Amino acid sequence: MTTITRVEAQDIRFPTSRELDGSDAMNAAPDYSATYVILHTDSGLEGHGLTFTIGRGNDICVAAVNAMASQLEGLTLEEITADMGRFWRDQTSGDSQLRWLGPEKGVMHLACAAMINAVWDLWAKQEGKPLWKLLVDMSPEALVRCLDFRFVSDALTPEEALALLKRLQDSRHEREAELKAHGYPAYTTSAGWLGYSEEKMRQLCREALAEGWEHFKQKVGGNLEDDRRRAAILREEIGEHRTLMMDANQVWDVDEAITQMRSLAEFNPHWIEEPTSPDDILGHAEIRRRLQGFGGVQGIGVATGEHCHNRVMFKQLMQAGAIDYCQLDSARLGGLNEVIMVLLLAAKFDIPVCPHGGGVGLCEYTQHIAMFDYIAVSGNLEGRLLEYVDHLHDHFIDPVRIKTGHYLVPEAPGYSITMKPESLARHRYPDGEVWQEA
Amino acid sequence: MTTITRVEAQDIRFPTSRELDGSDAMNAAPDYSATYVILHTDSGLEGHGLTFTIGRGNDICVAAVNAMASQLEGLTLEEITADMGRFWRDQTSGDSQLRWLGPEKGVMHLACAAMINAVWDLWAKQEGKPLWKLLVDMSPEALVRCLDFRFVSDALTPEEALALLKRLQDSRHEREAELKAHGYPAYTTSAGWLGYSEEKMRQLCREALAEGWEHFKQKVGGNLEDDRRRAAILREEIGEHRTLMMDANQVWDVDEAITQMRSLAEFNPHWIEEPTSPDDILGHAEIRRRLQGFGGVQGIGVATGEHCHNRVMFKQLMQAGAIDYCQLDSARLGGLNEVIMVLLLAAKFDIPVCPHGGGVGLCEYTQHIAMFDYIAVSGNLEGRLLEYVDHLHDHFIDPVRIKTGHYLVPEAPGYSITMKPESLARHRYPDGEVWQEA
Repeated sequence: MTTITRVEAQDIRFPTSRELDGSDAMNAAPDYSATYVILHTDSGLEGHGLTFTIGRGNDICVAAVNAMASQLEGLTLEEITADMGRFWRDQTSGDSQLRWLGPEKGVMHLACAAMINAVWDLWAKQEGKPLWKLLVDMSPEALVRCLDFRFVSDALTPEEALALLKRLQDSRHEREAELKAHGYPAYTTSAGWLGYSEEKMRQLCREALAEGWEHFKQKVGGNLEDDRRRAAILREEIGEHRTLMMDANQVWDVDEAITQMRSLAEFNPHWIEEPTSPDDILGHAEIRRRLQGFGGVQGIGVATGEHCHNRVMFKQLMQAGAIDYCQLDSARLGGLNEVIMVLLLAAKFDIPVCPHGGGVGLCEYTQHIAMFDYIAVSGNLEGRLLEYVDHLHDHFIDPVRIKTGHYLVPEAPGYSITMKPESLARHRYPDGEVWQEA
Repeated sequence: MTTITRVEAQDIRFPTSRELDGSDAMNAAPDYSATYVILHTDSGLEGHGLTFTIGRGNDICVAAVNAMASQLEGLTLEEITADMGRFWRDQTSGDSQLRWLGPEKGVMHLACAAMINAVWDLWAKQEGKPLWKLLVDMSPEALVRCLDFRFVSDALTPEEALALLKRLQDSRHEREAELKAHGYPAYTTSAGWLGYSEEKMRQLCREALAEGWEHFKQKVGGNLEDDRRRAAILREEIGEHRTLMMDANQVWDVDEAITQMRSLAEFNPHWIEEPTSPDDILGHAEIRRRLQGFGGVQGIGVATGEHCHNRVMFKQLMQAGAIDYCQLDSARLGGLNEVIMVLLLAAKFDIPVCPHGGGVGLCEYTQHIAMFDYIAVSGNLEGRLLEYVDHLHDHFIDPVRIKTGHYLVPEAPGYSITMKPESLARHRYPDGEVWQEA
């Protein structure tokens, strides 16, 4: 038995705004940050998890973790994993007083994500497996028991979920072997940040091409002429046949998104990401409908999800035919249980999942999710590309490994999210060295 | 010039769970609470505002106010009111780092509501008018300048908003006089809480009938037989021709809501409130569609809104034909500016607004909203009923006044939300007397 004895939450911030890393039309100067959770246990094992924020307010997420910590403290890992669906439900919305502050959204749900993911990390470490492998080795029945079907049963029943998982059960080993041999295909966002100069973009593009990258993302939404100029530079560098995605980070209204993207269609964007408010399901459906016929043979796909706060919103984006790509966020959804639910919904609606990467630790998380999805849920790589951003990986004990535009399969036990103790100490806000120097 | 010198946030909680006041299917034992904001100024005037929570986590909202306080401190009221739309936008999502924690939802948006409403209270006090009258005396142009059309311009443009307001401008005085003579029609929730015994329900019903109430709300969603038994009791007490609403507080999935309400249809409910997840726009549309033909001549209306977190969600509920009644919450939307936007959307879509009351101070807020709506926005009382719950009013300096089932027009300057200093002191958590005794 492993008992969770204490939940520790730390406020970790990286001063990324100093270099405009991560700058886009909505997020002008983020300081990539983590509400970092450590589950201390009586066995000596620790579960680590984090949620990603972009600076100010990270302390509010830490306060939210502390408000929920008592729900976890004293539980055994065995109690939790015996009925993980129920645990997830209780943790995310079982306290009716805390539920009022969401429900299942915003600060409280972000904080839940950090805690829930830390439980999964602990579980995987206890089993001595990387997280994706822990999932792949679970039976369809065991996986379904991890889920909470509340508010999505009209779109996906437990029986349907079970059938989806059983469909691929016997061939899991084939796709596992394939991933071990070739890795999981990825795209890079590193060259296209809004705050970068033309020179820096060109240089980063060339470096990426030399490393074997085939798929590139550009930030748009500044002003149209700038967006067009930058798209032309990127197309010039990467050529006509590589993939160029665009990401507006929510700056447009519905009609504006359509106008802007019709103008950018000549650069043949693979998708437009976050064209408008993340809450606007019907708006995304309208944008998707009115971009049909633009942007070359494939058309311009509509993608969103990094700010989509729960399974109920994803359910509707799929029901409404609003998206071509589901970009779930591993730390904004209420942790891995809800992520698995969204993978299953996407499989039912036949929508490729391309999780949101970047930030702090999101790539470390999403590699597990994408690999599990391929091996056990979708069984498909078509249209799937995993985001890669080459920031801050060196702070993790088991960072992602990339080879010629692919993620290599993680091998260490856990969810790959454990940070180096010296990185935590240096970046603790406001007392860490990095912030004291500033 | 009036300069905001300091933003003070207090954690105020009432131990309502001791009596099961406010108990329903989702919120079993709330302690009605307020994140209470005082804007101190150099003129001696104070602006008061609050957001409502139900207990645990109220401290997280207080932390959120403190995180945003510096954006307000140092501003003059005149700077703010000169371009209130811009102020609102900057306050709710102008800080891109804080925006990540929402955007425009959850803890951060609740905290914004308290601060924004406090600014309106200050403005109304400075003008020496009750808030509704401040609004009614503003020109259509000035009102539109208070709004942020981001993400709703596909449903309502500034020009359309202006036209809606101009339509009723010349006849405002007639409806103002009418409200002063007759008050605004209301319904009571006080008899129907889930935790109350049959005896207590009957007694409260009889008292309410004696006071002239015509419209009653019952909490449902416990179990069907209980719901039916309690509906029968209420119908027995109030008769066939008075209004009975039902409120499930989000406990059902979509199909379940339909089944349950078809069974409860024989009690002729006027509406079913919060039948499922507040995020489920398409789910509400489906429920509404599949309840057609049930529940007598008028049918069963679908109502929701107290957990609807922003204008983008309300826009879609209306675009999707998902609701018959809009129950906006004065402290969950980002304060009065966003409330006015939702009133205008509702007017355009011809949907009656019946704001969510109860909690701490919500009735005090909503009387101003409903009266402004009638006088200047909808010009219509048909289908409009303002919720009334008779808890905690005695803690306010200028509490609501009710006469034969109607709200009387508030007369004191401000937004009626200022609490008595002794109430604040006694209920401050955790150091106030009430909590020290517990």
